[in-house]
This record gives sequence, C-alpha cells and structure tokens, in this order.
Amino acid sequence: MLTINYANCLRDRVGEHGLDPARLGPGSDAESAAKSITASLAKTRGSGWERWRELWNNPMRAEHLGAINTLVKEREGRFENLVVLGIGGSALGNIALQSALNAPTWNLMAQGKGGGKPGRSGGLEAPPSTRHGCPRLFVIDNVDPANFRAVMDVCPPKKTLYNIVSKSGETAETAAGFMIVRDMLAREVGKKASDHVVAITDPEQGTMRAICDEAGYATLPVPEGVGGRFSALSPVGLFSAAMCGIDIEGLLDGAGVMDQRCSDPDLSKNPAAMLATLLCELAARKGKPNHVMMPYANSLYLMADWFRQLWAESLGKKYSVDGEVVYAGFTPIKALGATDQHSQVQLYREGPNDKVFAFLEVEDFDADITIPAGLGVESLAYLEGASMTTLLNSEKRATEFALVESQRPNLTIRFPRIDAQHIGEFIALWQIATAYAGHMLGVDAYNQPAVETGKKATFGLMGKEGFEEWKGRVEEGLGGSGFVV
Amino acid sequence: MLTINYANCLRDRVGEHGLDPARLGPGSDAESAAKSITASLAKTRGSGWERWRELWNNPMRAEHLGAINTLVKEREGRFENLVVLGIGGSALGNIALQSALNAPTWNLMAQGKGGGKPGRSGGLEAPPSTRHGCPRLFVIDNVDPANFRAVMDVCPPKKTLYNIVSKSGETAETAAGFMIVRDMLAREVGKKASDHVVAITDPEQGTMRAICDEAGYATLPVPEGVGGRFSALSPVGLFSAAMCGIDIEGLLDGAGVMDQRCSDPDLSKNPAAMLATLLCELAARKGKPNHVMMPYANSLYLMADWFRQLWAESLGKKYSVDGEVVYAGFTPIKALGATDQHSQVQLYREGPNDKVFAFLEVEDFDADITIPAGLGVESLAYLEGASMTTLLNSEKRATEFALVESQRPNLTIRFPRIDAQHIGEFIALWQIATAYAGHMLGVDAYNQPAVETGKKATFGLMGKEGFEEWKGRVEEGLGGSGFVV
Repeated sequence: MLTINYANCLRDRVGEHGLDPARLGPGSDAESAAKSITASLAKTRGSGWERWRELWNNPMRAEHLGAINTLVKEREGRFENLVVLGIGGSALGNIALQSALNAPTWNLMAQGKGGGKPGRSGGLEAPPSTRHGCPRLFVIDNVDPANFRAVMDVCPPKKTLYNIVSKSGETAETAAGFMIVRDMLAREVGKKASDHVVAITDPEQGTMRAICDEAGYATLPVPEGVGGRFSALSPVGLFSAAMCGIDIEGLLDGAGVMDQRCSDPDLSKNPAAMLATLLCELAARKGKPNHVMMPYANSLYLMADWFRQLWAESLGKKYSVDGEVVYAGFTPIKALGATDQHSQVQLYREGPNDKVFAFLEVEDFDADITIPAGLGVESLAYLEGASMTTLLNSEKRATEFALVESQRPNLTIRFPRIDAQHIGEFIALWQIATAYAGHMLGVDAYNQPAVETGKKATFGLMGKEGFEEWKGRVEEGLGGSGFVV
Repeated sequence: MLTINYANCLRDRVGEHGLDPARLGPGSDAESAAKSITASLAKTRGSGWERWRELWNNPMRAEHLGAINTLVKEREGRFENLVVLGIGGSALGNIALQSALNAPTWNLMAQGKGGGKPGRSGGLEAPPSTRHGCPRLFVIDNVDPANFRAVMDVCPPKKTLYNIVSKSGETAETAAGFMIVRDMLAREVGKKASDHVVAITDPEQGTMRAICDEAGYATLPVPEGVGGRFSALSPVGLFSAAMCGIDIEGLLDGAGVMDQRCSDPDLSKNPAAMLATLLCELAARKGKPNHVMMPYANSLYLMADWFRQLWAESLGKKYSVDGEVVYAGFTPIKALGATDQHSQVQLYREGPNDKVFAFLEVEDFDADITIPAGLGVESLAYLEGASMTTLLNSEKRATEFALVESQRPNLTIRFPRIDAQHIGEFIALWQIATAYAGHMLGVDAYNQPAVETGKKATFGLMGKEGFEEWKGRVEEGLGGSGFVV
C-alpha cells in the first residue's frame, strides 16, 4: 500500500514556509472542506466526466478486461513490434506503464518463447531476460519526421502491429501518422493489412469509427465520459500494456484499493484529499505553485510525464466555474533522483522558495546489487558491501534533509515495491487528487478550452477548408519583425 | 547559423507582460550593461573558471582532438557497447549530443561494417541504417539497481567498453558503478580488463587519477578550470560522441562561430547577451522566473536536460557575490512540441503568467515525410500531400500565436538544420548566456555550495568515517512523525 509522509510540509520542519498542522486537523476548514468534497464526489462518480472512477469496478472493468484479453489472445506471439500512435492522454499512460513495469532495455531483449509473464530484468549473474514472446513497444506521440522515420526503419510493416489511439480520429498528429502507416501497410502487406491494426476509438461515432468500420479494423472503446488524461486505466492504456505482458488486472485492483481509501470523508485517512489539500494550501498560503515530482527510481520517471498532463491540463484554468478570472493552476516539473541532485538541487535549495517537492521512494527493488569490496581505496571504503538500494535511498533521505534545512516543503510517496498493484494505486491517487484539487480551486478539471486556438491556427496554416481566416490572423499577429539576433 | 527571434517578448505583442523595446535599444541601461559585461568577460575568458571558453580554440582544441582521436582509433570497431558512467555534468552532455545527432533507434540498429561516418536514420523506403561500426551507447547516470542491472544484462563485459567520467573519483554514484564494473571485468575479462576502461578524470591528482595510474587505464583529461556543467565540449562529452561517429570537430567549429558572435559589445548583435538580457529582464520586471525550453524536434528534447543543469545550478544562488541574500535563479522546465501541446499548453496559456518560453525550431529535417493521399476522408484532406515538417512547424507557429494571444512572452531559436555545427553553436550560446546572466544577477555562476549538505548527509547515512554526526542530524531532523496517510 502506498503511503504519503507529509511531515516536511509542516511548520515544525520548514518554519514559515510550512503549514500549521492545526489547519489540517480536527475542526479545521480544510477538514470540513475535504468532507464536503468527498460527499460531492461520491454523488458525481460514475456520471458525466467522472465515469473514469468506475474503470476499476464492474461492469466496466469486466467489459474492458474481456475485450482486451480477447484481442491480445488473437494477436499475441504474431508480431515483433507494437507501434502505438497517439498523443497526449492517448500516449502518456502507455509510456508510463511500460516504463514503470518493464525493463528499460525491453526493446533490446530477445523476444524469447511465448507463454508466461515476463519477469523484471534478470540478475547480474543470471541469464539475460527475454520478452517472453511479447513485442517490442514504440510509442510515436509526435510528428517529428526524423523520429518517425527512425521507428519505421526498425519496424517492418509485416512484423508490426499498429495501435491507433484517437477518440475522434481528427487529431492532426495521430491522423497524419495513421495515414502514413495505412499507406505502408497497403503497399507492403496488402490484403491482410487490417489484421495489423487495432484502433482504440469512440465506440459509436466519429471519423476514426467510420474508418475502422469500413476497413474492418479491430477496435476497443475509448469509454464515454473518460477524458484523455483520465484514460490510462481504460483500454487506451491497458491494451498496449497487456500486449507487453503487464498484469492489467493488478493495475485495476490497485486502483480499486486506492479508490476505497480516497472515499473516506476523514481528511487524515484519505490520501487524495490530503495530497490535494497540502498542495493547494501551500500554493495559496505559502506562494508555492510549482510542483516538482522527483522519483528516486528510473522506472517512475516517465510516470511524471503522465502526471504533468493530468495536473497541468486539469487545473490550469483562466476562469473559475463561476466565470471569475482566476488564472489557476500549478506548474508540474519532473526531476529524477539521485541524478538531478547533480543538476537541480542547487536551485531547489537556494533559488526562489516557490516549489513543493513530491519524492517517490521505493522500499524494495526486485533486483538489488551489492557494491563489491576489493578496490582498496580508503575514501571509498564506505561503499564496499553496501547495497545500491541503500545508497539510493540514503541519497533521497539526505536530499530531503537538505531541503528541510533550507525550509523547502516536501513530501514522500512511498512504494513498497514497483508492481502493477502499486502503479494502479498511484494512478488512482493522482486522478482522485485532481478531482479534489479542481473543487478546491473552483475550476472545471475536465475541459481544456485553451487548446482550441492552437488547433484552429494549425488548421488555418495547413489550409484546411473553413479555417482560411486563421492563416491571416497568424500572419498578421506574428509577421514582420526586426527583432532577430 | 542559429537565430533568435524575440519579437514575442516585447510589449507590442504581449502587452504589459512584454518588455519595452526602448529598454533594449541604443542608449538603454541594458545596452550599456551588456557592453560592460562583454568587456569584463573578454578579460576573464580563458582564466579561472572561464577556461571553458577556450575549449574550441587552440591550443586546447588541438590537444583534446588529438588525444581523443588517438584513443578512438585504438578502441573503434572492437566493442559492441560503450557504457558511460557519470552523473550531472559528466553525463548530461553525453546524452544530449547522442540524442541530438544520432537516431533515437541507434541501439536497435545493426552495427554494420566499420568505416565512414554514420548517416542519420535512413529513408522510409531506403534500406535501414546501420551504426557504421560504432558501438551502442548507454549512459548510466543513476544508482537505480533495476536500471543498472538491465543495462548490464544487455552489455556483456567482454564486448563492452566502459567510459568512467569523474574528475575526483569521489562522486558516490559514479564510484559505486565503477566498483561494480571493475569487479565484473576482473571476473569475466581478467588480464585484459584495463583495455575495457577509458577514464576521464583529473590529469594530475585525486582518487580516480591514482586508480587509473595503478590499473593502467587509458585516460583523457577533465581540463582544469572547466566545471562539470561547462564540460560538454571537453573530452567529457566528446569522447563518447566521437566513439559514436559524431563530428566532434564540427561541434567545436560551431561553438567557435557562436563565441565570435557573442563577443560583440553591441547587444543587438550578440545572441548570448540578448538572451540573458531578455530572460533576466522578464524575470525581474515582469515576474517570469520560470523558463520553459520547448523544442519542436524529438532529438533536441534531451538537450533541454543539459540546459536545465547549466541554468539551474549556475544561477540558483542564495547569496550574491557581495554576500547579500538574494535567492536568485530561474526554474528551467522542459517541454516537447508538438507533443506537449496536448499536455502543457492549456496551463501555459491559462495558468499563472509566470513563464518565458524558448521554442527551438528546425527549418530542415534531413528526412522529411510526405503524408500520402488516398484515405478519402474529407475532414482530413488538408493533410494529404503535406510534409510532416510543414505540419510540425505549423503547429509550432500556431502555438506561438496562441501564447501571444494570451500575452505569454516567448522567443524562438531557429536551427537551419540539426547537425554538429549547429549543436556546437547552441551549446556555446547557452554557456556564454549563463556567464552574462551570472553578471546580471550578481551571482557566482561557477560554484554549487548547496549540494554539500546532501553529500555529507549521504556520507553520514552510509557510515563513512568522519561523518558520523551527520547521521544523527538527519535522524533528528526527519525522525518520528505521525503525519502519514
């Protein structure tokens, strides 16, 4: 079970930059706010844009698992590569799950025989791990031609399954990638091309739906009421995970456990409510709107990218739900421990005191390493015989101590270990915390009005019918400047 | 030649959130400050901690190139893998250069025959590229046991060259990695183990120097007066680059060209002075201390990590050079276009207006892709026949437009193309801009006093002799709290 230790967010530890614990305790405003938001969320869960909160409960859970497992069984063992085409919420969850739960060298490992679940990477003296029959995974979430070409070069269409993820089919980046892939498949695979595509899209309507129906592509649903950034535990994130041997039931189990804990009206027992309260209060009262997520584990680093979208896009809003101009939101920043101690910690300790740090700590790595003796250098003797986990976690504790000494508030989310269950807990924790923070800030956590302008301007610049005027607007707005050096 | 367009940092474009151009023009304080800092930097260049500014000039240039090329010739074609062990400035440049100048699929490509320089990734219909005899590259810059093991699993010692980068040899993370590798080599390679190590370290003194001398390892120097974060274009960054076929002379040529431009006392012609002026002024006068670097090119994304260290660690300082408490510094943030339009741009437009955005734009990608016709979907017809570069750069322009509309200041650094010359320009640009910004903020850009506490606390927790009291301090400071949920 994940725990959150927030002692270093409090005044006892970080002085005037911390919160008064009485403000969080029995009878406090924060406590009663949490209680009333919990009641409100209990009413909205499972409806409107909060249907994501039912992803781990039946009937949604059983439906999705059934459909995913059927498709995985049909496709598994037949492809060397799985290429996901999606962007934003249609890619970040996929990347985060793979990075958290499979080895960083996954694509370099031998495919091996089918059957069984892949283990984590093997031991220093054990035989190298294989992918247990699973494909290599590539997620293309940009329209960079050099990157696109490089991936295509190592993924011959005949050996590749393409997973197109787009609710509408109208997202320019994903559509462009799909059009290229479709053309390659037609030329190189021919009649059986449709067998190489699994689309995740709207089950009823839209451009991609129509394309799939006509081409006979297998599909999985982007469920109604599940927005992109809340879709990691829907088929959007789970299909590619399952293809790569990840325990998707474990993910949903973990999410369910966390959801239970986050349904408690008592602030002191509800991790999501506490997380949202701490971060909102430290921003509002202590001037700390920048939120650094700093895992001490390489495999959790890209989880911070998933968090960045969830937190930024949900809470960064000009208007409150009452129509007031608020320019709300927090700036999520990712860092990696211990690595960024040698890059960012100087600033974190001595620069502007405008951040809260969320460390992610792992108690037990599956495969520890003992630093061997025998070097015979006195100043390094302290490392001999130590475990690498001990070194990593000591560095984390030392950094925590150094930040406290500089009165920089921070908290630690602790993973007993990194596995599907705990990753599921983590995802649910932040999704539910986002719902709380939306209420606390008084904003709609489920829209993203500000991205429309850029989309329309792109259409205009690309010559899409009906958007001609936008081209002129962009050229007028940005054109002709002598301010170049 | 790189250009910087900063029209969108000005009041005409972004209203009260922009600068008055008169403040940058002839007779302004900024102009005379730039002139006097340029004169001051001309005096200090090549001495003290500004010896990095001579890396691209002879005699340093010739010495380093000679030594690197000799070692590369001895080692090339003999190893399947090159593993760099370093952290912070001893890794970020290596990662950035590889990511910028070789394909993202480098480690998946066939090694191929030796000879010739590797090209960029091949064409969609061309035969797949190879590494032209160069090794795969892994940079281990953390002490995460799962990650360490995974890399070791795919790199058998007999086929691997280890590049240890540590000036002193005392950095705990790098030392730990080295101790493990040394032990593996002794067991699996035996007598010829020393042939598998190239160390980059202090040429005269220190723990690693002594280890190398005793073991007979080949070494290259971390030059005196070149700090970690200013060392990308020294042997620290250049050896692994050269092993992977990168044109290291081109890097130094580019840096030299930029250095020339950045020696001009005229602010309006000096890119580094202008960049530093804009960012310092927008922070001081307009409340924008957060600096987002957002390349529209996957290969430049990790260059932003190199920038993050340079900018954060150099400028994030509690004390000014006069001993005043200033809590100076800017928070560097990385983002990727177009990808993060679907993640961060909602916040960037509607959240707190506390950021400046530096877009990186690429005019010409080596390998463009045309989006094919034939899908026959009306709403996607605008993409048919368009090039992917046009789409990517239209998205960039649209985002620029959208940010301007929300009065968010931004600038664009334009690459004619991504090659060694322009990457060298980019590195020199930011290093010199950092020197200017240090003067403008009145801080010492070359120290990092705040990382000492964490190092000592780590020593204490790991039981290093002489640091016993630190263990107690940490335990007292962080121990025993009921604030866990």
